[in-house]
Amino acid sequence: MSKETFPHLEALRDLMRSKHIDAVIIPGTDPHQSEYPSEHWKFRDYVSGFTGSNGTAVVTLDDAGLWTDSRYFLQAAEQLEGSGFTLRKENIPGEPTVLEWLGEVLDEDAVVGVDGRLFSLIEANRIEMFCAQNGFMFAPDFRAAEAIWTDRPARPMNPAFVHDEALAGEDVDSKISRVVDALDAADADGLLITALDEIAWLLNLRGSDVDYTPVVIAFAYVSADERVLFIDSEKVTSEVKDHLKKYGVKIKDYDDIEKFLGKISSTATVMVDPNRVSDALGQAMICNKTYMASPVIALKGVKNECQIAGFRQAMLYDGAAMVRMMMWLEQNVANGITEMDVDHRLQQERAAYASNRGDSFHMIAGYKDHGAIVHYEATDESAYTLAPEGLLLIDTGGQYLEGTTDITRTISLGNPTAAEKHDYTLILKGHLALARAVFPKGTMGVQLDVLARGPLWNEGMTYLHGTGHGVGHFLGCHEGPQSIRMEANPTPLELGMVTSNEPGIYKTGEYGIRTENLLLCVPACSNEEWGEFYKFESLTLFPYDTTLMDMDMLSREEVKQINDYHAMVCERLRPLLSADEAQWLEQKCKSI
Amino acid sequence: MSKETFPHLEALRDLMRSKHIDAVIIPGTDPHQSEYPSEHWKFRDYVSGFTGSNGTAVVTLDDAGLWTDSRYFLQAAEQLEGSGFTLRKENIPGEPTVLEWLGEVLDEDAVVGVDGRLFSLIEANRIEMFCAQNGFMFAPDFRAAEAIWTDRPARPMNPAFVHDEALAGEDVDSKISRVVDALDAADADGLLITALDEIAWLLNLRGSDVDYTPVVIAFAYVSADERVLFIDSEKVTSEVKDHLKKYGVKIKDYDDIEKFLGKISSTATVMVDPNRVSDALGQAMICNKTYMASPVIALKGVKNECQIAGFRQAMLYDGAAMVRMMMWLEQNVANGITEMDVDHRLQQERAAYASNRGDSFHMIAGYKDHGAIVHYEATDESAYTLAPEGLLLIDTGGQYLEGTTDITRTISLGNPTAAEKHDYTLILKGHLALARAVFPKGTMGVQLDVLARGPLWNEGMTYLHGTGHGVGHFLGCHEGPQSIRMEANPTPLELGMVTSNEPGIYKTGEYGIRTENLLLCVPACSNEEWGEFYKFESLTLFPYDTTLMDMDMLSREEVKQINDYHAMVCERLRPLLSADEAQWLEQKCKSI
Repeated sequence: MSKETFPHLEALRDLMRSKHIDAVIIPGTDPHQSEYPSEHWKFRDYVSGFTGSNGTAVVTLDDAGLWTDSRYFLQAAEQLEGSGFTLRKENIPGEPTVLEWLGEVLDEDAVVGVDGRLFSLIEANRIEMFCAQNGFMFAPDFRAAEAIWTDRPARPMNPAFVHDEALAGEDVDSKISRVVDALDAADADGLLITALDEIAWLLNLRGSDVDYTPVVIAFAYVSADERVLFIDSEKVTSEVKDHLKKYGVKIKDYDDIEKFLGKISSTATVMVDPNRVSDALGQAMICNKTYMASPVIALKGVKNECQIAGFRQAMLYDGAAMVRMMMWLEQNVANGITEMDVDHRLQQERAAYASNRGDSFHMIAGYKDHGAIVHYEATDESAYTLAPEGLLLIDTGGQYLEGTTDITRTISLGNPTAAEKHDYTLILKGHLALARAVFPKGTMGVQLDVLARGPLWNEGMTYLHGTGHGVGHFLGCHEGPQSIRMEANPTPLELGMVTSNEPGIYKTGEYGIRTENLLLCVPACSNEEWGEFYKFESLTLFPYDTTLMDMDMLSREEVKQINDYHAMVCERLRPLLSADEAQWLEQKCKSI
Repeated sequence: MSKETFPHLEALRDLMRSKHIDAVIIPGTDPHQSEYPSEHWKFRDYVSGFTGSNGTAVVTLDDAGLWTDSRYFLQAAEQLEGSGFTLRKENIPGEPTVLEWLGEVLDEDAVVGVDGRLFSLIEANRIEMFCAQNGFMFAPDFRAAEAIWTDRPARPMNPAFVHDEALAGEDVDSKISRVVDALDAADADGLLITALDEIAWLLNLRGSDVDYTPVVIAFAYVSADERVLFIDSEKVTSEVKDHLKKYGVKIKDYDDIEKFLGKISSTATVMVDPNRVSDALGQAMICNKTYMASPVIALKGVKNECQIAGFRQAMLYDGAAMVRMMMWLEQNVANGITEMDVDHRLQQERAAYASNRGDSFHMIAGYKDHGAIVHYEATDESAYTLAPEGLLLIDTGGQYLEGTTDITRTISLGNPTAAEKHDYTLILKGHLALARAVFPKGTMGVQLDVLARGPLWNEGMTYLHGTGHGVGHFLGCHEGPQSIRMEANPTPLELGMVTSNEPGIYKTGEYGIRTENLLLCVPACSNEEWGEFYKFESLTLFPYDTTLMDMDMLSREEVKQINDYHAMVCERLRPLLSADEAQWLEQKCKSI
C-alpha cells in the first residue's frame, strides 16, 4: 500500500506549495458527517493508505501524521509503513493531538488548509480559533481531492427508493409539519438538513449509496412553504419522482446546494445543526442562522406503533436467521470453518428473507483473543479457524424494510472454563439488571448505566464503550438522541425509543464477552402521586448461552428473568422454524 | 402576626413611593447567600410575617405576594393571613413565577428595586435581563431595611474562635497556597470569598453568628501577597488576632469590603463565584473579573486524614447520644412525651460531650403523618404526643469540634404494620445498595442515584429530594461540590468526600420513612487495566430498626450487610456506653 500512496502524498505537497498551504488536515468523513462514507470521499485513505473507520491525516510540507485510536494501532502501523506518515495515537497521555502537534511544528503565519465541506461548523470553528490563537491563517476552501485524485471513484449513483408509508407509519406531510412546528417554536423560517439518515426519515426515502445504512446521498431544505431535495438526478427513479411530487418536494441537483443556500434572503433565519452541517454550507449562507440540534433527531428517535411492529417483525427474521447460522456453526465447528465463514453464513440466512437489505454494520465475529479486540473485523488474512473450545463473540445486525437489528451473543464452542463462566455471568447480570429497570419519565441514560456496569465494577473491572445507543428504523444502526453511557447526555429516555443494552468485558489475549439486546421503552405504571414510570421490552429474540452461566452467581429473580425471556424467544420464533430448528431452539431455551 | 407586619408593608410602600420604586423583590437570604441567615437579615420576615426558610416577598404599590414551596404552603397561609400578602405557590403548574407575575402587573417603564447585597450576580443578572426585555428599569441599590426597619436586630457580634490545627489537619498557609495555585491556573490575581463556610475553612476560624453552622460573619480576599479578613472588630478576640497575625491575615472592618474592592487596580483580575458573590460586591469592583466556582469549594469538599479521624470521633459521640436518647424514648413512649421532647433530649445527650457545639440543623422529629412532611419542624403547638404505635422519623445532626453529623432513623413505636415494614424495607434496600457500591474514579453522583431509588421505582414510587449531599467538617451540614441526585452534577465523587445516603418515602397522612448514614469515599481496589475503584465507608454509627424489616424482601447479601454494620456499630460504641446502654445496643444489633 505504502509504495502506492507515497506519490499521492507528494502530489498533495506539490499542490500545497502551489496554493501556499503549509498544513492540511484530512478527516475520514464526508459532507454529511457519515459514519460510513462512500469510496468517493475516502481521500484520507488515498493519501495515506490507512483504511480504518476513525483516522485523521495531517500533512505539512515536510512531515505527515495519521491520528487514530487504539482499535487501529496495529492496522495503522502496517498500512502506514513506508507511506511517509507517522502513526499518532489518540487518547494516549503525552501524545499530542492534531492541533497540539500543528502548534509545535508550524511557524507563525503558516496557512492551515482544510476542505470545509468535510468539517462540521463546530469542528471548523475549533480549528479556526486555534489558528487565531497561534498566529496561523485558516484556509477552509482547500479542496485537494478534486485537484490530485486522478482515479477518484464517482459519487455513488444507486437508485433511491420509497420507504413504504405502511412501514414508516407516517407520511411526509405529517413529518414535515412536525418539523415546521419545531421551526416555529424556535422562530426559524427554514431547516437545512445534511445528515443522510435525517433526510431518509423525513422524506420516507431510502437508498444504497453507503455501506450498512440504507440512505441516499442528498441534502434537504424545509420551510413552511418550501421543500427541496438536492440529489443527483441519476438516483431519482420515476417512483421517487412521483413520491416527491405528491408531497410537493422540489428536486434540485446535489451540487446546487451551496448556490441555493446563498440565495436565501438575508432577513430569513435558517436553523442549522452546528454538529452536522458542514462549514462550507454554513459559510454559503448569508441569511441569519440559529444554531440548534436538528429537530429531526428527536422526532426520528421516537418510533411509532407501525415502526415498533416492524421492529418486532425484523426481530423474528433475525432471530430465525441466527438460529440457522448457529445450528450450522455447531455442526461445523470442527470442520475448519473460520470467523469469515460465520459472517457469510449469517448474511446468507438473513438474505433468505425478502425484506432483508444486508447487514446493518460489519459483523464482529471474534474467536478467542480476537473477541477482546472491541471493534475487530475479520479479514481473509486475520480470520481464525474455529475449534470446539473457547469463546466466540458475534456482534451483528441486519437491515430489513421493517426495521434494523443489532445483536451480540457470546457462545462457548466447548469446555467453558470457570473464568469464562464467571465473566459471562457478570456481564449477563448487568445486562439483565438494565433490562428489568423501572424508572420515572424524565430519566436519562446516564442514570441507568450503573445497572449494567455494577457487577463488573464490584470486581474492579469496566468497559470503555457505552452501554446503549439508539437504533434507527431501517436506518442507521447507531443514532441519537438518547444513550446509556457513563457520560451525561441530557436527553431522557422516551416511550418508543429503541436502545441497545450491551455490557461487555475484554480480556486481552484471552477472550471478549458481550451480550446485547435491543430494548424498547414502554410504559410500566403510573399513579397520581409520582406520575408515569417506564420500563424496557427486550425486542431481540435469541437465547443466551446457558452453558456459560455460573448458577451460583445468579439470583432467583435473575433465573426467572432468563427463563421468561427464553420462553418468549421460543414461542415467538417457533412459527418461523422447521421442526429440527424448533427442537434445537427448545433445547437452548430449556429452563435453568 | 399579620396585624404586626401590615404597618411594615405600608412603611415599605411609602419608601418605594418616595424613591420612585414600583416593585421590590425581597429574598430570604443574607449578603453571604447563607442557608441560615441571622435575625439581622430577616427583612422578608419583618415585612411579610412569613418565617419559613424558603420564601421570596414581592411588593408593588398596590399588591404583594409571597412565593414559597409546598413544604410551607400551610405555614405561609396561616402567617400571611391579613398581612396584605397573597401566598404564591412555587413549582405548581399554572402558577406564575415572581418574574412572570411582575411581567403581568407592572406597566412599561416601571422600576424594579432590589437590595443588590442579597442577590448573587447570577440572580441579579437574571432580573436585570428580565427588566430589559420588558421595558422596566432595574434599581439594584434599593436598601429598604436600613430605612424602615426600626427595631432591627443588630448584626451578631459573637466572638470568633480558632479551629485548632490539630482538628483541621492543615494550617492556613497551606490552604491559602493551594488557593493561590488555583488562582495561578486560572490566570487570576485574587479571590473574593463571601461564603461564610469557605472563609471559616480557609482561615481555620469558627464562630456562632448563625444557627446550626459554626461560622463567623465576614468577607475575605486572598491573593499571592495579600490576605484580608473583613470582620466586625467585636468578634476578634486576642486569640483570633494572634492567629490571623501568625498567618499574615490583615483585619479590616466588615463594612469596608465595598471600598476595598473598589480600590483593586483596574489591571488586576479577581476571581468571583457568580453564584455566591453578591451583585453589590460584583458591581463595586472596577478590576477585571473572572467568573468561576470558588476553588475553596472543591478543596473544602475533600477531607484530610485528620478531618476523617475527627468525623469518626464525632460519630462515636453522636451514636452514643442517640443510644441514650432512644433508650429514654422507649422507656417513656407511653408517658406523654412529644416530638419536641425528643429534640430536647437528644440535644441534652449531645451536650454531654464537651466538643459538642449544638445541632447541625433543626431536628425533624415527625411522628405518624408528620413524618410525611419532608421538612417538618415541630413547634410547641404542632408537636404530637408519642404513643406505643406508629412510625417516628428522626432526622438530626450535631456539630462537634471534630466534625459534623447528620443521621436519619425511622423507628416503630409498636406493632408495625405490613405496609410500614414493606416500605421501610424498600428504603433500606436502596440505602444498602448505595452504601455497598463500588465504582471507578471519575464517577458522578447522578450515576449512582438509581441504586438508592431503584427499589422504589420498581413499585412506581420515588422521592423528590436528593439522595445525598456533601457534609462539612465542623461546618455546614449541607455543602458541595458533589451530590447524589437525579440531576446531573459534573463533580465526580472523590476520595475523602463525605456524602449523605438518605432515600425516603412519604405517605401523606400516614407516615414518612427515611434512613440516612454519612458515607466516606475510600479506595476499593485498583489495577493496571481499569485504574482505581472507590467505595463507601458508612461513618454513622446507629442500628437500623430490625423490627421494621420484612425479611422476605432482603437478600442474603443484604442481611449480611446489615449484620456486619450492626456488629461494627456495637463494637465501636461499646467503649462509650454504660453496661445498661451496651446491653440495650447489643439487643438492637442482634443478628437477623
